[in-house]
Amino acid sequence: MIERRRPYNSNDRIKELGLKMPKGASEEMKLNKGTILKASCDYIRQLQKDRDQQQNKLENAAKHYADRVRDTVKVQSM
Amino acid sequence: MIERRRPYNSNDRIKELGLKMPKGASEEMKLNKGTILKASCDYIRQLQKDRDQQQNKLENAAKHYADRVRDTVKVQSM
Repeated sequence: MIERRRPYNSNDRIKELGLKMPKGASEEMKLNKGTILKASCDYIRQLQKDRDQQQNKLENAAKHYADRVRDTVKVQSM
Repeated sequence: MIERRRPYNSNDRIKELGLKMPKGASEEMKLNKGTILKASCDYIRQLQKDRDQQQNKLENAAKHYADRVRDTVKVQSM
């Protein structure tokens, strides 16, 4: 007999999504398809928002430090 | 007759996930539950990885600029 592998189905994928949710998320969430899917939508939204905010933070930090270096050099050349 | 609202079901959530996927993702993907769920897993993994890399980048930039400011001040006080 040939061993047949069960295809990776939607329920497996939903379980996989459940495992990717942040730890804070209630444990019972992992048991319920609907709540996993809702949490996944919320989590993706949060990650996208964090990414955009972090990008701004990085740009502001770079600008802030570049200004400080410039100011320091200016004082030095007085 | 009382208007009954259809509950927000798993298929709606999966469609919602499909809409959150980055534009690059193939359009046909949006039609298929299995591929949306797979893409969602991959996308969450990517967003988490990006977040961690961006965090490192921010810390390195802060360190780099703090060093430059310190070096500039040092030269100045010589």
